[in-house]
Amino acid sequence: MIKLTPIGIIHSPFRQATGTPVQPSAAKGVEGAVEVFEEYAAGLKDLAGFERIWLLYWFDRAEVEAPALIVKPYLDNTRRGVFATRAPARPNPIGLSSVHLLRIQRNKLDICDVDILDGTPLLDIKPYVPQFDIFRVARSGWLEGTVTARRLADSRFEKK
Amino acid sequence: MIKLTPIGIIHSPFRQATGTPVQPSAAKGVEGAVEVFEEYAAGLKDLAGFERIWLLYWFDRAEVEAPALIVKPYLDNTRRGVFATRAPARPNPIGLSSVHLLRIQRNKLDICDVDILDGTPLLDIKPYVPQFDIFRVARSGWLEGTVTARRLADSRFEKK
Repeated sequence: MIKLTPIGIIHSPFRQATGTPVQPSAAKGVEGAVEVFEEYAAGLKDLAGFERIWLLYWFDRAEVEAPALIVKPYLDNTRRGVFATRAPARPNPIGLSSVHLLRIQRNKLDICDVDILDGTPLLDIKPYVPQFDIFRVARSGWLEGTVTARRLADSRFEKK
Repeated sequence: MIKLTPIGIIHSPFRQATGTPVQPSAAKGVEGAVEVFEEYAAGLKDLAGFERIWLLYWFDRAEVEAPALIVKPYLDNTRRGVFATRAPARPNPIGLSSVHLLRIQRNKLDICDVDILDGTPLLDIKPYVPQFDIFRVARSGWLEGTVTARRLADSRFEKK
């Protein structure tokens, strides 16, 4: 058993899954903030030089008591293996989003392209680094052609 | 307090940090495997269509009892805020690597470009999706110009 401690809180305009953009690519221009708890603020040194950052966070409002291994993801009408999706309801419900970093003031980060619910517990921040994170790929499975035009989430993975 | 349960184990040629490639970009052609525990194998459906996948894993051999918020990362000679680095010793030691998926047989994934220690606990698998994960960035902080020529890790973050 592994234990994590939130290092901050993510703020956004989104109070519930329904209507929240699916992925930062559907959230262009949506502003939010990250409040890093004071005791971790020293770790933000040098981060301002990065244009984008990865946020790792806890999907605290996803249904994870007995997560389904087969899900119908937001962007499809077909049931898929959960590890072939970015759905929030997963065995370890860790979210991953690359957001645009606007500025840092002490322990507060202003961010943009936010697809995360307001009040979400922050687990980690990493710099987005082209040489580490950008790879040319020819195949991206079911997400290549069969996706719906949907860009906003609904309530399908919310806690009952 | 948040609890995680490993969903599998990552296998690689690397038994210790020293000599392990820093990031998949330094590990081109290095083969490894992911063993997903039987009870989670159903979640792998549809994953084979993706050329690359994100592995989220637990840095189980990094020093995290009292993680430093200022670290000297593998690729630099200067002390940096830990959140501006991808160093393993961090408040929530979750690793993130995009690896090449070669094939899936039942609950076993053969992978390539592996920068992960053998025996590392797997936390999550997500598809690598260009429209979600690739962003043009003009600035990537200290990693732009000042990096060393180092491509392999040493023992600096290992448990004492």
